[in-house]
Amino acid sequence: MVSGGELRPVPETLRRVLERTSTATLWTQLYRRGYRNQFLQDVRPLRSDYRFVGRARTLRYLPGRADLLAALEREPERNPQRAAIEAIEPGDVLVIEARGETGAGVLGDILAARVQARGGVAIVTDGAFRDTPGIVALGLAAYARGQHAGLSQSLHVPIDRDVPIACGGVTILPGDVLVGDGEGVVVLPRDIAEEVAEAAAEQEELEAFILERIRAGAPLAGTYPPDEATKRAYEAQRRSGE
Amino acid sequence: MVSGGELRPVPETLRRVLERTSTATLWTQLYRRGYRNQFLQDVRPLRSDYRFVGRARTLRYLPGRADLLAALEREPERNPQRAAIEAIEPGDVLVIEARGETGAGVLGDILAARVQARGGVAIVTDGAFRDTPGIVALGLAAYARGQHAGLSQSLHVPIDRDVPIACGGVTILPGDVLVGDGEGVVVLPRDIAEEVAEAAAEQEELEAFILERIRAGAPLAGTYPPDEATKRAYEAQRRSGE
Amino acid sequence: MVSGGELRPVPETLRRVLERTSTATLWTQLYRRGYRNQFLQDVRPLRSDYRFVGRARTLRYLPGRADLLAALEREPERNPQRAAIEAIEPGDVLVIEARGETGAGVLGDILAARVQARGGVAIVTDGAFRDTPGIVALGLAAYARGQHAGLSQSLHVPIDRDVPIACGGVTILPGDVLVGDGEGVVVLPRDIAEEVAEAAAEQEELEAFILERIRAGAPLAGTYPPDEATKRAYEAQRRSGE
Amino acid sequence: MVSGGELRPVPETLRRVLERTSTATLWTQLYRRGYRNQFLQDVRPLRSDYRFVGRARTLRYLPGRADLLAALEREPERNPQRAAIEAIEPGDVLVIEARGETGAGVLGDILAARVQARGGVAIVTDGAFRDTPGIVALGLAAYARGQHAGLSQSLHVPIDRDVPIACGGVTILPGDVLVGDGEGVVVLPRDIAEEVAEAAAEQEELEAFILERIRAGAPLAGTYPPDEATKRAYEAQRRSGE
Amino acid sequence: MVSGGELRPVPETLRRVLERTSTATLWTQLYRRGYRNQFLQDVRPLRSDYRFVGRARTLRYLPGRADLLAALEREPERNPQRAAIEAIEPGDVLVIEARGETGAGVLGDILAARVQARGGVAIVTDGAFRDTPGIVALGLAAYARGQHAGLSQSLHVPIDRDVPIACGGVTILPGDVLVGDGEGVVVLPRDIAEEVAEAAAEQEELEAFILERIRAGAPLAGTYPPDEATKRAYEAQRRSGE
Amino acid sequence: MVSGGELRPVPETLRRVLERTSTATLWTQLYRRGYRNQFLQDVRPLRSDYRFVGRARTLRYLPGRADLLAALEREPERNPQRAAIEAIEPGDVLVIEARGETGAGVLGDILAARVQARGGVAIVTDGAFRDTPGIVALGLAAYARGQHAGLSQSLHVPIDRDVPIACGGVTILPGDVLVGDGEGVVVLPRDIAEEVAEAAAEQEELEAFILERIRAGAPLAGTYPPDEATKRAYEAQRRSGE
Repeated sequence: MVSGGELRPVPETLRRVLERTSTATLWTQLYRRGYRNQFLQDVRPLRSDYRFVGRARTLRYLPGRADLLAALEREPERNPQRAAIEAIEPGDVLVIEARGETGAGVLGDILAARVQARGGVAIVTDGAFRDTPGIVALGLAAYARGQHAGLSQSLHVPIDRDVPIACGGVTILPGDVLVGDGEGVVVLPRDIAEEVAEAAAEQEELEAFILERIRAGAPLAGTYPPDEATKRAYEAQRRSGE
Repeated sequence: MVSGGELRPVPETLRRVLERTSTATLWTQLYRRGYRNQFLQDVRPLRSDYRFVGRARTLRYLPGRADLLAALEREPERNPQRAAIEAIEPGDVLVIEARGETGAGVLGDILAARVQARGGVAIVTDGAFRDTPGIVALGLAAYARGQHAGLSQSLHVPIDRDVPIACGGVTILPGDVLVGDGEGVVVLPRDIAEEVAEAAAEQEELEAFILERIRAGAPLAGTYPPDEATKRAYEAQRRSGE
Repeated sequence: MVSGGELRPVPETLRRVLERTSTATLWTQLYRRGYRNQFLQDVRPLRSDYRFVGRARTLRYLPGRADLLAALEREPERNPQRAAIEAIEPGDVLVIEARGETGAGVLGDILAARVQARGGVAIVTDGAFRDTPGIVALGLAAYARGQHAGLSQSLHVPIDRDVPIACGGVTILPGDVLVGDGEGVVVLPRDIAEEVAEAAAEQEELEAFILERIRAGAPLAGTYPPDEATKRAYEAQRRSGE
Repeated sequence: MVSGGELRPVPETLRRVLERTSTATLWTQLYRRGYRNQFLQDVRPLRSDYRFVGRARTLRYLPGRADLLAALEREPERNPQRAAIEAIEPGDVLVIEARGETGAGVLGDILAARVQARGGVAIVTDGAFRDTPGIVALGLAAYARGQHAGLSQSLHVPIDRDVPIACGGVTILPGDVLVGDGEGVVVLPRDIAEEVAEAAAEQEELEAFILERIRAGAPLAGTYPPDEATKRAYEAQRRSGE
Repeated sequence: MVSGGELRPVPETLRRVLERTSTATLWTQLYRRGYRNQFLQDVRPLRSDYRFVGRARTLRYLPGRADLLAALEREPERNPQRAAIEAIEPGDVLVIEARGETGAGVLGDILAARVQARGGVAIVTDGAFRDTPGIVALGLAAYARGQHAGLSQSLHVPIDRDVPIACGGVTILPGDVLVGDGEGVVVLPRDIAEEVAEAAAEQEELEAFILERIRAGAPLAGTYPPDEATKRAYEAQRRSGE
Repeated sequence: MVSGGELRPVPETLRRVLERTSTATLWTQLYRRGYRNQFLQDVRPLRSDYRFVGRARTLRYLPGRADLLAALEREPERNPQRAAIEAIEPGDVLVIEARGETGAGVLGDILAARVQARGGVAIVTDGAFRDTPGIVALGLAAYARGQHAGLSQSLHVPIDRDVPIACGGVTILPGDVLVGDGEGVVVLPRDIAEEVAEAAAEQEELEAFILERIRAGAPLAGTYPPDEATKRAYEAQRRSGE
């Protein structure tokens, strides 16, 4: 089995860089490094004005099945859903594989509140939330494919946690760094997170300069992508801004 | 044919209880009684801050067909769509089976205004609305799968009203009690509506207590689901609150 | 090849009429003239409070392919995407065929800003935007099927511009008049745009009168559709209003 | 409610004409009369070498629901599925609305055998069959969207029979004439069935002549559609063939 | 983590019973025991005249990702796909979770041949096969959602084997008993496989008797479901047949 | 606009090599050269025992629209569909972009017969065929997503021919080499067709050797992918086979 790796924390410096970086720019830097598929498809924020940076803690659901659900009922202390939530540490994001199924919620406002109380920064799933208005009221960043009033056990059985999962068509390992903004969620493999974040921050700075020029009427040619003159102008402004 | 039952009104007491209850909690109580499929899938509120409680008045559309559309044109007074709207009584919700088709609207702002003028509390469909901005402007609760500028007759023909229908994958009988919130719409069979509402109200009260504890830092174990100590604490608070 | 016609401007008078007219009413007038399929399906506004009227400038994407992408990299000046954007004139809307694919953006905030800077009034696609929050921040009307952080070249290759395209299931010719509101986007063939706009404006005036009556409690029968008495009342009010 | 009309039998002469006519040609003749939507989409024959002509006997399923399923269990004699099957007369086709759901069968080989024993000529549904190999073994024409081992009551509840239904996106009234071949199923409204059949038979005769010419190397121009010369040649051959 | 249990072999007696039993009947017996979801949806046999009974050996794919694919290239001996195939024992069925993705094959004819050479009785996936004609030529039972010429690594990365998986919307544990026929594949949890098989065999015998009666003209009432008289007749025939 | 290139013929030698090569192997060789997306998704052969090699002649459909359809009716000689068919040369394959729409046929048996009479070797579309049984009867290789009795003009309007198109999610240029087998259709850009074909033929020869070994019981390790010993054995056999 491919290991999910150790669960290294997301350093504060990395977190600060990522908090200012858009998922689009991070995607570009990942793509340049051969990662073609790191944005969760059809997974939308409940509130488009929230952002988060978090360390992935994974939870995997399978289709509900009588014997497995009975076993969880007999031994609730072995329920991977509860265990995953109680294992959340400050700065973690709980990310749940739900196979894209939106015919039941993956969890509701009480469990979401516990994630938040433990310091969790977001919940992400390619399934649905239930108690969606209650989750919105918590003020926790939350991303899903849908909303449905149904209990998770009507459709799902939690099977394992802190294992590699698929969510929104992307592979996520425990310890990956997840970043969410109004567009959605991007997944940074832990080993390249710093490098990607640095490059993305630089790209964003340059692009902010370019955007300003474009808004002021500059043509694409020479400006975007920037030619040598534009790059020099950018460097000049950057130095002067220091 | 399975009868849709008589169209008993929704008593004011029942309405008041349901107005404070989330669709998620009602779904849970229905599920416990063997109803596995009572939440309309992929049917979303136009405005997430609206709620409603209403008695289902059903309208069934079939795919458009030349002879049936010609018959309605010849005898507009026999149009089940118009008849359904003019039969709306205060407290009713008009719910329209559109087979999940979003390539045309099921109705627009003028017909919606008539539903509202007659005391209707909501319109629900698994098709699309047209004049969506106009419907939003009316301030009427409205739930649909999509929005489309097209007239209903380009895709649909109204075939019957006050008959059992399928909407959002749920069977709805005339006289069922429908409840909508920011999450969506849940369907309560009329005969068990009071029982479900009572149980849901109790559950919500307890869960509000639990949510408060969780937000204050209580662990899931013992709190949710509540053990005897938590239940006693809840009962104590409840009594002291009286 | 069916010609996309010359790119006649949208006269200011036509623009003013269309700015007050809903896509639903325009759809009705098109339908009466045999146009059954002029509303872009599943293409939603980023902001539901925006509107636009614009002349269609088309851009066609095909699935990405190594040789074509390499050719664009070698000769960026022949990139139809860049050419389409730099050819935007005031009052134009850039409309992009993306085959309904939402697994990558069709463009991001910098290119959108250039469209805006050149006087473009909107961007429409049946694909996804990237940098969606940035595009929202521009204040440009924008309509799409989804949002995705990915670069267009990961999925698409721009192949041609100012040719007939399919977008949201509708055929759009360069020079067509596009109108967008909170419901979506409707396509007016250039040759009948004035006629359709006139008829729609008249219909809207009448329907505003009808809506007022319905809201005041009038029944559907006689009011909608209006019988002779209602029509006379409308004409009387209209004259008195002059 | 729009009536399904009386259940007139399909005369033997009509049946004989239709048995030689393709669904494609019948579709064309329906389309010329304003019927745009008479072919069941995504409904495939179990065996592509079977054909049938039959009178529609309809059965409508709704999503399963605890109270309705319990009522059928208490009073099986009121089950519309059983009633529909026992009401089959020679030459009938049983057509079942299943909302496109393929997660359970609509019926299996025993019920299909009863349809056949009563003289039924085909079973058509936009759901799935179960016991598909058993149904194939019966040698009965059968058309569906899928195949699934599940019992119908796990997903559906039969609600009514001999009422208008939607199947494969087409409205079907009891008494309509259904024709199936290797392509699929087309629906002829009873009132125009003779007229459509006559016209289709003529069209087929002409097209057989055209096909022969095309296969022999004739160009499309003048041959298809046929110009006056081709029509004369066809008439000449026809006369000589008598 | 819920254990997949030990990998007990499928006894020859059980295998023999299951070889004569349809997936539809097995589904019924599972459903009666509370298992509502044991048939793989949209997973079809390559050849409808094949059957199999096998012990589930599972393989799980996740979406492809640069670092994981690079790791497998560096250490091919740790590839779970290869390991799963080389671990196949006589009577096993290899079942592969592919998240319903049909944009690449999960394996082709060479790997399928190795499964067969090791005594594997079938390959099942909710993805696609590649080299489909080659797999058909092998004469191995094979079930999939689609067929695609693409290599698995263009879309998937194998992540683990002999763990619980989801396939066709059903949870499968290693050691489960899978049965396939012309309809599709049904999953029997190991612990109840004998009981379900016995009950299904009895049901099939009775239903064969019923089917014969129905084909001979018996009405549904009294025959299906069988009343006391029919049951007695069945018992009588059964005894006489001994 | 990216040119579709001149329409070079497919040399007989190339054709002969490709006739013996599977689409799966060709896909692999394309993938190794950076072409990730050259297999038409969800496009299936009408008969799985047919194969073809052909030069792509493209035809592009757009959604039907009143003015464009009227123009074609007025000037049928300018219909790109007819023109495309009459331009077919021996060895060509007609490939039609239909946007994945299966609600109408793209053409029927008469037009297919003309393609065949002109020496066309196949017809490929991501839409549907009509007169499917008639097309099967012609014995022409044919690949589509569905089958539908409807005339193309009920849904489509032909807009252009011999231009780049998208079909089954793949970009196809006029002059590309298409190869079809029982799995589906793969697209070879003309400039690399010989190189890909050579490499694929070599790969197939080696894989036939490997398959034989695997069927004889060889383990994957060392055999597939082949190690030095296996490669030497292959070379030895190859030489001895000469």
